[in-house]
Amino acid sequence: MKVTVLQDIMSANDKIAARNQDLLNKNNVLAVNVMSSPGAGKTSLILETIKRLKEKVRISVIEADIASTMDADRIIKEGVPAIQINTGGECHTDANMLSAALEKLPLTDIDLLFLENVGNLVCPAEFRIGTQKSIMLLSVPEGDDKPYKYPLMFSTVAAVIISKMDYLPLSDFNLDRFEKTVKGMNSRVKIFRVSVKTGEGVADWIKWLETQLKEI
Amino acid sequence: MKVTVLQDIMSANDKIAARNQDLLNKNNVLAVNVMSSPGAGKTSLILETIKRLKEKVRISVIEADIASTMDADRIIKEGVPAIQINTGGECHTDANMLSAALEKLPLTDIDLLFLENVGNLVCPAEFRIGTQKSIMLLSVPEGDDKPYKYPLMFSTVAAVIISKMDYLPLSDFNLDRFEKTVKGMNSRVKIFRVSVKTGEGVADWIKWLETQLKEI
Repeated sequence: MKVTVLQDIMSANDKIAARNQDLLNKNNVLAVNVMSSPGAGKTSLILETIKRLKEKVRISVIEADIASTMDADRIIKEGVPAIQINTGGECHTDANMLSAALEKLPLTDIDLLFLENVGNLVCPAEFRIGTQKSIMLLSVPEGDDKPYKYPLMFSTVAAVIISKMDYLPLSDFNLDRFEKTVKGMNSRVKIFRVSVKTGEGVADWIKWLETQLKEI
Repeated sequence: MKVTVLQDIMSANDKIAARNQDLLNKNNVLAVNVMSSPGAGKTSLILETIKRLKEKVRISVIEADIASTMDADRIIKEGVPAIQINTGGECHTDANMLSAALEKLPLTDIDLLFLENVGNLVCPAEFRIGTQKSIMLLSVPEGDDKPYKYPLMFSTVAAVIISKMDYLPLSDFNLDRFEKTVKGMNSRVKIFRVSVKTGEGVADWIKWLETQLKEI
């Protein structure tokens, strides 16, 4: 009985997700679902991407959090329209939340839409929401064993950003082993080694993003 | 309808949690629920605590993960009995999972039982499981803004461990501001500044834990 209820919810969610994706495609908007643990640097990466791309790409951001509007405030300071979703205790965004946010956005004036998901490596991976691309960040201080613990997230994203590369000298993170593990779970994944603080790898990430934009 | 189902589940969970706590109290076992983001250092702190206390305190560990037995393997290497719970995709442990694990443990031979929860700042805070104490780790690289984003977790724990203090020189984490924020949400909370790598603050944490043990 419990399983049936859950399947109904998932199937309703997936229908809304498909509708969200249609709407995005019709408006030539590339939506990127950005996931990670708390504090892996999602907002910082989005801010840096905005700084580098905002002269040529029209960007908007949906910030999802359990509580607070801190991240949306940081984005708005950059002169980019941002909407905050408070999930009201939920550990992820679902298709319905994205649908409500899309209704409030001027989609014809947007090329690239980031959805910054709730900081969590479990639940956000379980829900389709309708974005065309999902990416995740894994910060160096979190350690290189995370793919084994959160296999669904690592197996399903289009790109993994190893963030906070500037912490590497203090860490025993094994980059080669980590990348090999992730590729073993997800052969088509792109992996970027990035530090927003030093600028390392940001250009490669931006280049990949621009390629995705051309494909929409 | 959905809400009613959820309330039923929560109330059933809370009954099992109360039963778990009775069982622990009857056996004079102090159970500590250890929560944090992925990679904040839960396993490392537990391992260091075992090293320092195992001669005088009989310790056991329940490791909860979505997948893998990596953490339990690390604990068992220290000669301490450990049980692995795989939550099968769930982002937290519930009272039922703890109950099943308690049945497998020789409770009369245990003084201190750690439950290492799934790495997540959201869901684990929402479920009572029956441990007498809940603590959390927040690692320096995650940033000092997390209490605003995950208020439930920070408001309900008995202790907050600021972990990975050795990363502080590379970070803009403001310790005083963070501690003031947390105390504002949770006036009785104990806060420890810890680095398992350098040993900073570990003795204070151990001392607090020994005080809790005496109160059981």
